[in-house]
Parts: sequence; structure tokens; C-alpha cells
Amino acid sequence: MNPVELIRKKREGDTLTKEELEEFISRFVAGEIPDYQMSAFLMAVYFKGMNVEETATFTEVMLHSGDTVDLSMIPGIKVDKHSTGGVGDKVSLILAPMVAACGVPVPMISGRGLGHTGGTLDKLESIPGFRTNFSIADYKKIIAETGLVLIGQTKEIAPADKRMYALRDVTATVESIPLIAGSIMSEKLAEGIDALVLDVKTGNGAFMQQYDDSLALAKALVGIGNSMGKKTVGFITDMSQPLGCMIGNWLEVVESVECLRGKNVPDLMEVTYVLGGAMLRLGGKAGSIEEGMKQCKSAIYSGKAYEKFCQIVARQGGDVSFVEQPGKYQKTKHIIEVKSQAAGYVVGFNTMKMGLLGIELGAGRKKVDDVIDPAAGIVLTKKLGDKVVSGETVALIHTNRDKTVQPASAELSSCIHVADAAVVPPSLVQAYLDAEGVKPWLTPQLY
Amino acid sequence: MNPVELIRKKREGDTLTKEELEEFISRFVAGEIPDYQMSAFLMAVYFKGMNVEETATFTEVMLHSGDTVDLSMIPGIKVDKHSTGGVGDKVSLILAPMVAACGVPVPMISGRGLGHTGGTLDKLESIPGFRTNFSIADYKKIIAETGLVLIGQTKEIAPADKRMYALRDVTATVESIPLIAGSIMSEKLAEGIDALVLDVKTGNGAFMQQYDDSLALAKALVGIGNSMGKKTVGFITDMSQPLGCMIGNWLEVVESVECLRGKNVPDLMEVTYVLGGAMLRLGGKAGSIEEGMKQCKSAIYSGKAYEKFCQIVARQGGDVSFVEQPGKYQKTKHIIEVKSQAAGYVVGFNTMKMGLLGIELGAGRKKVDDVIDPAAGIVLTKKLGDKVVSGETVALIHTNRDKTVQPASAELSSCIHVADAAVVPPSLVQAYLDAEGVKPWLTPQLY
Repeated sequence: MNPVELIRKKREGDTLTKEELEEFISRFVAGEIPDYQMSAFLMAVYFKGMNVEETATFTEVMLHSGDTVDLSMIPGIKVDKHSTGGVGDKVSLILAPMVAACGVPVPMISGRGLGHTGGTLDKLESIPGFRTNFSIADYKKIIAETGLVLIGQTKEIAPADKRMYALRDVTATVESIPLIAGSIMSEKLAEGIDALVLDVKTGNGAFMQQYDDSLALAKALVGIGNSMGKKTVGFITDMSQPLGCMIGNWLEVVESVECLRGKNVPDLMEVTYVLGGAMLRLGGKAGSIEEGMKQCKSAIYSGKAYEKFCQIVARQGGDVSFVEQPGKYQKTKHIIEVKSQAAGYVVGFNTMKMGLLGIELGAGRKKVDDVIDPAAGIVLTKKLGDKVVSGETVALIHTNRDKTVQPASAELSSCIHVADAAVVPPSLVQAYLDAEGVKPWLTPQLY
Repeated sequence: MNPVELIRKKREGDTLTKEELEEFISRFVAGEIPDYQMSAFLMAVYFKGMNVEETATFTEVMLHSGDTVDLSMIPGIKVDKHSTGGVGDKVSLILAPMVAACGVPVPMISGRGLGHTGGTLDKLESIPGFRTNFSIADYKKIIAETGLVLIGQTKEIAPADKRMYALRDVTATVESIPLIAGSIMSEKLAEGIDALVLDVKTGNGAFMQQYDDSLALAKALVGIGNSMGKKTVGFITDMSQPLGCMIGNWLEVVESVECLRGKNVPDLMEVTYVLGGAMLRLGGKAGSIEEGMKQCKSAIYSGKAYEKFCQIVARQGGDVSFVEQPGKYQKTKHIIEVKSQAAGYVVGFNTMKMGLLGIELGAGRKKVDDVIDPAAGIVLTKKLGDKVVSGETVALIHTNRDKTVQPASAELSSCIHVADAAVVPPSLVQAYLDAEGVKPWLTPQLY
């Protein structure tokens, strides 16, 4: 294979064969194909895409570029969830212990904050002592003991994806559906799961803001998972406002703990129950998603989900006393109320800008080696559709950065749009996808 | 400037500013921007192009990445010609001494064979002893003494283009009009010329086979030259059959010498006279292209062009006795007649395939370090529109490669299409371009 001819073929929009992709990627990982040829290839894929078979092959080649974890010694159907990322998306923190409490093993390998979105690892690590850097051997041990495990990516898994992702990040080739799909699925399929539930975000706080793009990505992800023998379903969920009310690492742990103790934050818990219900169905513990949702709700109200959370926090080195008494946690120097100038209803959020503002407050990184301030973030006291009186508090800023307080208050205020006439918020779970196709979704009421 | 944002900007089809291009390219030449970012950028340019101003800026930045030669101490308006490359295109060998004989200094920096096309340097170097690797100081000395100079590219000129061209070659980003235009013009504008005549080839033996693509390239080239203060005109000329009858390095020297001695190879000499006429007009020696063409014809028939050729061959170390007695040259071991199976008229050539076949016979390189066999090549005895009797010789193969004889004969035969009804060959010079725009061209008859 001549790498130049392969790049040219993709540039012309032709379909690459399995042999071509295998040789190109394995020679890249071996250092025989230089970065400059891979980056030209990635840009050609950005413009010309990949068809369904190509994307599946691409994923499979990346998956087999490194180790794949064998969890067959763990009884039960292992199910994970992956979200494409949003603002205030702390679902994993509630979902993983809740589903594990219902008897489905949850092996979860998560990432750090990326762009304007937060990362599950950063949130977990805001709990004093909590560790996420375990070896594959420890990973297996923890899930065998507790029924779940929450760690970060390891070098052994999908090295082709890691090298390619680093290159995409510096060559403006991130925003490509086949490349995103191949990256997500090669990492997920390597972690030893039997089934996967996907949460593909849409709206102005998502990476794919347009519904059609989100749907295309969801189809690619679900298609790849099923074509590779893992039962995979997906939901398209709204990210036109932050999920729940808290944004920022420790703040999101606090909100998650409140929900694990039975607080109903409606949008957050709707997404969590729907995803959990689907995980239980795929995990063989429920005959339908609705039945699974009911079991999840029981696990919350019985306290079993919360207990499971405390168990995994302790097992991974975290100080459970902070979970039990969140008030112990050192608060930020500044906690500033942002008040509405206008009266009316909240009609929109600039969700992405709010995510980026969180980074300015200290909750995320601008460079890879920046240190996160775990206590920094934003608390919303109003959500889409809520009534607002002039001068009323709509949000709070938590930060230790003196100079950021004033500009951040003005910026946050500009992100929350108030108007005379109320709008109906978009429905939270907008579609369901499985191997058979896309179906409209109406979340069942749980009594 | 963030290189990723610049790549993204071009990926989105936005126009880059002069400052952005300057910084990006100068940091690339300085080694601060890695090849993998440049190759992603080049692929984005392949898909999104550059507008006229951007292409001119891009050229200017590459031009100023290295030395520019100052020929102001040479009296007269210095004029060069550049061809985008074809099969059997030996025009420079006749044109440069012809124009110099008419009093216009011709500083010519040429390239080697590329893809299916031959290179002027390789042709000149087939003359025993002929050197093309002179320093810039010698380059100035030779043109001062003889009125012309024929050398190869030097490292000092346009280093950005040389590095970028090497990268384009291995990342499938060669075929882009702004990149081709920037590459050609940055090299040409650095060599110290005052004016330039361009020969943009079109048809199945050209890099741009479609007329519209050739026209777009010609417009870009003429636009850049004039925007940078050099009088630049161009012609679009036919490359749907080889130019003249000989293909291969020494064979093309032989045909050029025959023409310099007054032989009329109609298509070859029409292009040569038209380009020469335009060079004389730009060089201030003729009031019109037609008048310039007449002076060129006089230079051929008076023997002055041939004398000038012998003078430059001797000055650059070549053995003039081979020019005077071409029969002295060692012929190839095999000279094989290819005969037509069919009767009728020649209606088409697969010109690109014939160029590639020349490489198989030994006349070109497959890898950069391959050694050329200067005597190898093809001689056509029939051209478009000629009548052919069954069993008649249509071409001859010259090669020293025993095993290539049989397959090459079959291949060459398949490249020459014979049919019952004659076709009218496309007109040879199809359009004229100058700073004012594109005009149709009708070659004047010279009596």
C-alpha cells in the first residue's frame, strides 16, 4: 500500500477497504507512517466522511491496536454508558452506583473535561482522596468486589485512538462524525463490556448542536456497537440548558449526592432514570426500559444507590465523610449572586458560553497541565421556563479568583435570556435508537 | 496566532489575512510549525481553495522566504517562459536561444521530470558534459556573457516552496490551483525576471486535463504575476497529443536541434513562435506578438538561434560536437517499430500513458534517485489526423531494457487510436491571457 494513494483515494471520496485501513493505521502506530500523512488523511476524512462499513472497520482496527480487557470472569452482563458531553452533565455519578445497586455490573472508563464540557474523572477527583488511575488488574478487582468501577483511560487500551486523537486536537480535525464515533467506540469496546447505552447530546451546549448532526452521530455509534456484537442503544437528549442546577466539579458531586439521597432534580433525574432503565434492560434485569426505570427509582428511594456510591468512593480511596457531610468542604472565597435585570421568564441559555465561563472561574483547564479548582463553578437558581422577578437571583458564581468575579457576573448574566412570554422547554429525551432504527421517545411517568 | 485556529479557519472556507499567512509560513520554515499541521492545512486548501488576493499573498510570502536574485545589472528586460508540463514538450530548448538571439535576455531556472512529464534539465543534461548546477553568482555571469542561462533550482530560492512541495508530494495535496500557482510563481519571481510568458497545457497529457481547470490555473498565474509588478501573459495550449514527434531526453534534443536548424515540426514550432513572439513583445523588442513571431522566425532561418544554442551548450560545459553531429550519440540497443493493426486515421492518443511508458523505457524516474537512460524514448511517425495504412509504422520504441520491448510495444500500440473517419485536431493555441483578461487566440500565418 502506498500511503499517498490511500490519502488520495479518501480525498476523492472513495471507500477504503479493511486491508487498506488496517495497514495504514497499524503502520501509523508502528511509527512507519508519519504524522504528516495521517493528518492529511484525517482532513480528507473530515471533508469526505466514511460510510457505515468503513467507520465500523476503522473502529475495529483502532480497538485492536492495543489490549482489550476480558471481564468474562465477572458474572452478569456488563453494561456501560457513554455521553458525548455537555454542561452540568453529572449523570454518571448517580447512574453507575444506581445501576450497580440493581445488580448490573458497570465497568466505566471516563475522560476529563474537554472544551466547554466537564469530565467525570475531574468530578470524582474533587472528592478528597478519590483515585482514578488504577491498573487493568485493579480495575478487574474493583468491579469484582463492588459491582462497579470508575477509572480513567489507560495507555494499554486503543493506543491508535490516543495518538490519533492528540493529532486531531492540533490539526482542526476533531469535528468529524466517523472520527468521533471511531474514537468513542474503540475505547468503550475495549473495556470489557457486553452492552452499551449512549447519551448523545443535542442543542447549544453539545458538541453537535444541530439535531440532524446529533442523530447522524448517534446512528453511527449505535451501528458500530451492534455490528461489533455488543448490544448498543442510544438516546438523543437535550443540552440547550445545563443539566440540573450545578456546574463545577465538587458542586456536581454535591448535586449528585443530593439526588442519590432522593432529591428530585427533574431534568437530571429523568435522563438518569431513562439511561438506567435501558442499562437494566440490556443487563437482563428488566424486561423493558420502563420496568428498569422503576427498579432504578427503587434503588434511589431505598438508599441502595447511595450506599453503593459510598462503597465505591471508599474503595477508590475517597474520604466518605465529605459525601456524608458535604458542608465540610472548603467553600470558594467568593460566592456571588447574579441578579436578573429583567422580569419575565427564562427563555434561553447560552450553554456553551456557561461551560467556558466555568473554566474561567477555575473549574476546567485551558491547557492540559492547568490545575483545576474543584470548588469553583456556577449554581443556577432558575431553569428554562421559570418565572423571574426583576432583581431576583438567577445564579451564583463560586470562585477563588478575585479578578474574575466582576467580568464573570456580567458574562453569566448575558448567558441567561429573560423575556416577557414563556417558552416551552424542548423535550429532554428526544429519540431512542437501537439496532432496528430510530424511534420517537416519550418518557413514561413513574409513580 | 494559534495554528489550529488558522487551519480551522481555512477548513471553514474563510479567507486568511496577510499577517496570518506570513506568520504561519515563516514559522513553518523556521521549524516551529510541524509538518503535520502544514499537511492538514494543505488538505484544507485543497478542498476550500484560496481567493485571488490570498493566492497572491501566499506566493509573496513564499517568494520572500529565501533569496531573490537581482539581475538589474544586466541591461534589457529579462523575460522567462514557464510551461505547466506535458509530453514531448521541448519548447524551452528552442525558445530560449531563439529569444536570446533576438536580444531579449532569458534567465531560465527549470525543473526535472515530474510524474508523466519530462523536465528541461534532464533533456539538457543528456548532452554530454552539459551542467545545470551553477551557483547564483555563476548564473549571473553566464547570462551577462551569453544573454541566456539554463540552470536548475537552487536551495537559496523559495525554501518555503521546496519544503511545502516535498510535503504536498507525499500527502496527496499536489492538485490544487492556488498551491500550484503559488509554487510556480514564487520560484519564477525569485529568479530576477521582469516579465513572464506562461504556457498552460490542457488535454489528456496535461496535469490539468479539463479546459476550465487549465483556464482557472492560467488566470491565477497571470493574476499573481501582474499583481506583483511583473508583466505576465499566458497561453492555453493543447496537450491532447505529444508536442512534436520525439519523446525522451536525447531524442528531444535531436528534434530541437533539427528545428533550430530550420526544420518545421508544425505543432512544436507554432507553440515556440507564439511564446517567443510574446516574449519579444514583453521584452520591448517587438510592438506586437505577431511582429515578435516574425523576428523569431528570422532568428531561426538566419542560423542565429542555432548559433546561440551552440554557444550556451559550450558555456555550460556541453560537448557541441554532439549537437553538430547527433548521429555520433550512442543509440539504444533496441529500436523497435510499432505497426498499426488497423487502417484509417489517427483520432486520439493516450498522452499521459505515453509519458508514463517513456519512464518504463528508461527516459524518466520512478523514484527520486533513479538514473535516467538519456537515449531511451519514443518517436512518433504519425500525429492526430494522419492517414494510416494497415501494417504501417506509427511509432518507434528506443530502449536498452530487453524485457520492456514486448510489453511496451503492445502498450504503445494501445495508446494510438485509429478509426475510419478522420477528426480535426484541436487548435494548438486555444486562448491568450494578460492583465486585461482572457481573449480567444488565432495564430497569425507567417510568410
